[in-house]
Amino acid sequence: MFRDDLDPGQKKACLRGRRFRHILDVQRVAVGEELNVGLCHGPIGKGRITRIAADSLEMDVRWTAAPPSRVDGILLVALPRPPVLKRILADVTAMGIKQIYLINSQRVEKSFWNSRALRAQTILQQLVLGLEQACDTVLPEVYLRPYFKPFVEDELPRISQGRQGWAAHPGGDCSCPRQVRQPFVLAIGPEGGFIPYEIDKFRALRYSIVDLGQRILRVETAVTFLLGRLI
Amino acid sequence: MFRDDLDPGQKKACLRGRRFRHILDVQRVAVGEELNVGLCHGPIGKGRITRIAADSLEMDVRWTAAPPSRVDGILLVALPRPPVLKRILADVTAMGIKQIYLINSQRVEKSFWNSRALRAQTILQQLVLGLEQACDTVLPEVYLRPYFKPFVEDELPRISQGRQGWAAHPGGDCSCPRQVRQPFVLAIGPEGGFIPYEIDKFRALRYSIVDLGQRILRVETAVTFLLGRLI
Repeated sequence: MFRDDLDPGQKKACLRGRRFRHILDVQRVAVGEELNVGLCHGPIGKGRITRIAADSLEMDVRWTAAPPSRVDGILLVALPRPPVLKRILADVTAMGIKQIYLINSQRVEKSFWNSRALRAQTILQQLVLGLEQACDTVLPEVYLRPYFKPFVEDELPRISQGRQGWAAHPGGDCSCPRQVRQPFVLAIGPEGGFIPYEIDKFRALRYSIVDLGQRILRVETAVTFLLGRLI
Repeated sequence: MFRDDLDPGQKKACLRGRRFRHILDVQRVAVGEELNVGLCHGPIGKGRITRIAADSLEMDVRWTAAPPSRVDGILLVALPRPPVLKRILADVTAMGIKQIYLINSQRVEKSFWNSRALRAQTILQQLVLGLEQACDTVLPEVYLRPYFKPFVEDELPRISQGRQGWAAHPGGDCSCPRQVRQPFVLAIGPEGGFIPYEIDKFRALRYSIVDLGQRILRVETAVTFLLGRLI
């Protein structure tokens, strides 16, 4: 929940809309019962339902713990088609990634950059779904970078400083490392992969080009599979 | 492709329907160009388009290699809702799993067992999509087990013989192992997790109860994330 959902003492909350319906229809929590709650960029805790009205509910909340630890990894993803983007945003948020760059690539459909899925409000919805799934409260930052060359030349060197860099690419030089304890940047291309020019740009920044073996996965599956290995 | 798509000498193929449209609309391959092909339960190779008609295309094929190696792991998944089931079937097929048991659990919605997503033809479509994605040719076997108790008591002991067993469950006893080289069975519960009775059944078969740390992922994300760790 957000600060606006709370009374000034931060002990009582009132929820409406999607979250109200989710608690009633999916979680099926009744008056007097408890559920997990989290305060955006704040602690997590428990909420006990005190009242259910036609379009809102009230609860008493107590904050008990810090949110789960974050992953010190930055994700670069070539902008996928909108339904895939939505799932990736929610999933990597649930996995604990806190910085996501949506980047361009030769094989990204130009029209994707005009999609309504890139509106701030739509992106925020997916991030909140991911946080709710993982009982986390810290929103990731999402950056849109519709031009590849200025991004990798002017911005990526600074982003990559002090981090291991990997670009996932079929037929890479080595397989993806496991259980990495250092800060990292992971770049994942579009369906069809990065083009050689783009791979060379990552190499120039000392990124390792890694693959998943013989098998090629869908972008959203590759993101989760690779993060399962790395983190 | 299937044997029925080939001429008796297995050197020429004729494709119609979805695959015909995919080659034209998505892969955008023209006459004279080559694409990757695979023969169901057979080798992979290259196909060169020789003719494109209104509703079919022909190609000369040559078989060059065995399909990618399989994963010696069996997946048990509590039956998820239909759209999630479809993505899981395609994804785990692409990752190389060859035996999938869709099992019941207290928290599986009864209506899911009547879903059209469980028709043999619908399941096959997803498996074929997964094989195409990964350039694989060996279809997984999918088993439906709508009764939990007879499955775990009468069948699972035999299935688990000679294999390491893990059941993924929030708040498990240990975290999921990495890069496993032995044959395994991995069981993944429904949204909300297995109930204690079910977990005890897995324990009785010496399954380890593993989790992903503090974060809880959606079922489809957990499947891919865990396989990324294990394989």
